[in-house]
Amino acid sequence: MIDALIEKVRQLKNPSVIGLDTAFEYLPENMRKNANSLKGAAEAILEFNLNIIEKTYKLVPAVKVQVAYYEMYGVHGLRAFEETLRAAKAKGLVTIADVKRNDIGATAACYSKAYLGRTLVGDREFAAFESDFITVNGYLGGDGIKPFLEDAKKYDKGFFVLAKTSNPSSGEIQDLPIAHLSESKSDTPSLAAKVIYQKGAPSLAAKVIYQAMGQLIEKWGEDNIGSFGYSRVGAVVGATHPKEAEILREAMPHTLFLVPGYGAQGAGSAEIKPCFDGRGLGAVVNSSRGIICAYKTDRYKGMDYASAAAAATVDMREDIVKVIDIL
Amino acid sequence: MIDALIEKVRQLKNPSVIGLDTAFEYLPENMRKNANSLKGAAEAILEFNLNIIEKTYKLVPAVKVQVAYYEMYGVHGLRAFEETLRAAKAKGLVTIADVKRNDIGATAACYSKAYLGRTLVGDREFAAFESDFITVNGYLGGDGIKPFLEDAKKYDKGFFVLAKTSNPSSGEIQDLPIAHLSESKSDTPSLAAKVIYQKGAPSLAAKVIYQAMGQLIEKWGEDNIGSFGYSRVGAVVGATHPKEAEILREAMPHTLFLVPGYGAQGAGSAEIKPCFDGRGLGAVVNSSRGIICAYKTDRYKGMDYASAAAAATVDMREDIVKVIDIL
Repeated sequence: MIDALIEKVRQLKNPSVIGLDTAFEYLPENMRKNANSLKGAAEAILEFNLNIIEKTYKLVPAVKVQVAYYEMYGVHGLRAFEETLRAAKAKGLVTIADVKRNDIGATAACYSKAYLGRTLVGDREFAAFESDFITVNGYLGGDGIKPFLEDAKKYDKGFFVLAKTSNPSSGEIQDLPIAHLSESKSDTPSLAAKVIYQKGAPSLAAKVIYQAMGQLIEKWGEDNIGSFGYSRVGAVVGATHPKEAEILREAMPHTLFLVPGYGAQGAGSAEIKPCFDGRGLGAVVNSSRGIICAYKTDRYKGMDYASAAAAATVDMREDIVKVIDIL
Repeated sequence: MIDALIEKVRQLKNPSVIGLDTAFEYLPENMRKNANSLKGAAEAILEFNLNIIEKTYKLVPAVKVQVAYYEMYGVHGLRAFEETLRAAKAKGLVTIADVKRNDIGATAACYSKAYLGRTLVGDREFAAFESDFITVNGYLGGDGIKPFLEDAKKYDKGFFVLAKTSNPSSGEIQDLPIAHLSESKSDTPSLAAKVIYQKGAPSLAAKVIYQAMGQLIEKWGEDNIGSFGYSRVGAVVGATHPKEAEILREAMPHTLFLVPGYGAQGAGSAEIKPCFDGRGLGAVVNSSRGIICAYKTDRYKGMDYASAAAAATVDMREDIVKVIDIL
């Protein structure tokens, strides 16, 4: 699936991903006015998504569906989430379920079944919320990643692990500097840390936590590298931190980046450029509000929301290909 | 709600939490044999949960419901998750939705609405998956925590942030030693890290990442401390790491610990003792498989699953109160 995603990026010469973070209040008034329940809201959101997909599926390689915007509408919202993923897939889009799941191994295995694998009931298998890729939080380390890796191999899927996130406070943990035993004479590191160090410490190139996470991500993907040199195990690297992205791009040559932060969060094409390799590959760039709320802006005034989304998608691609040249 | 939880622990002299991580294969054969769909499996799981709750609600202060075990059954599973939370609440149990959610601020706000707050549709408000507490991953830092904190205040709820998790690989990130600028002359820390340091670095007491996370958790809760001295913002601290728990207990005097790892994951009463304060407060201890799968073990042979769960709950309490004396 990593090859299929990159191949689609190349065919379309477009690394843009449309983020369907569809809050009910983003919908036009006429779609909102009759909804007075979680079910009504979820059905309106689904209709909105389906129309966006219909107008844009030929323009982009993938959509990213942010599950939080569906969970807030309860089981009805999750039905809309499931149907959105299914409709996008049916149109040939690569689907990314942005779920940021994480847990200990046995529990991560359940999440993995829900999105990447299959759930067994009796002698039958079911795909609950089938997605091509998901996002995962790696704070729990490798045994919380393993089930996703196994299902990704078995069902030809992939996932993106959070490395450096796009939000303002991402540095509180992610930018903390690492003490390397080899260059320190002090007794600062705890016994536990020393044990970990003996088992497999981050290399000296990892000065801070997001770089150590990056090294783990490269390692998790090392046996899963596809024909473009990128593995099934990608990383989330925010476009709002171009300097950090540049460091990670160099340190993670086999890791595709899923790049949030373009558009409404403030990053433009200059900021995303460091996420790409010399072939114009290596990253897919998400925009959510910038696309699905385009109809509310002066630039696309008078267009319906789906047509405005398509026009904004074309504009986003043009903005990006100004700074990268896709192989 | 933090006071209500601690008050229940005191009344029952029991800090045990029953974990409803109900995998379909945990159910007795006669409950499984007619299910041949996600819906059928989810309905059987719900029936199992309701019977466990009915037999145990007078024995424990709280239940923890692990959402991954429901997501794998799709929307039907999430209906069972919702109904389980509702039934537990109706019986007077404090409910903990173990969801480990995390994202940037705007998205975290959606998750918060789903579990702790309310979702607005038109002029009506709905609670999608109402819970008293949830679990949260703090890798994204403070702006991903803020929405949960706001809703927790507004609706009298709380949440537990992952500090030191119970799984074997938790140390890969959580145990990495921190370089402190004040004791280092090298240029190792990146520019970004220096900026963070100026804004509010972890104190020197935080030698490793889980301790830095612990300091953030204490800080996030500082304006929300209840009458027992504990705040709405708790921490997840695995019972499988008693040495780390001891360090955190001392460093986090206002933070209630949610302690997984007791029972099936290998920790006993000796390992959980460091999680408690001198009053026998400061922690609630979860057991999942040890309770809900008790009927499969020799000790509870011949009992139905709900009666076995109740007996195992009593045994767990007795095991814990051997080592702690609750105020």
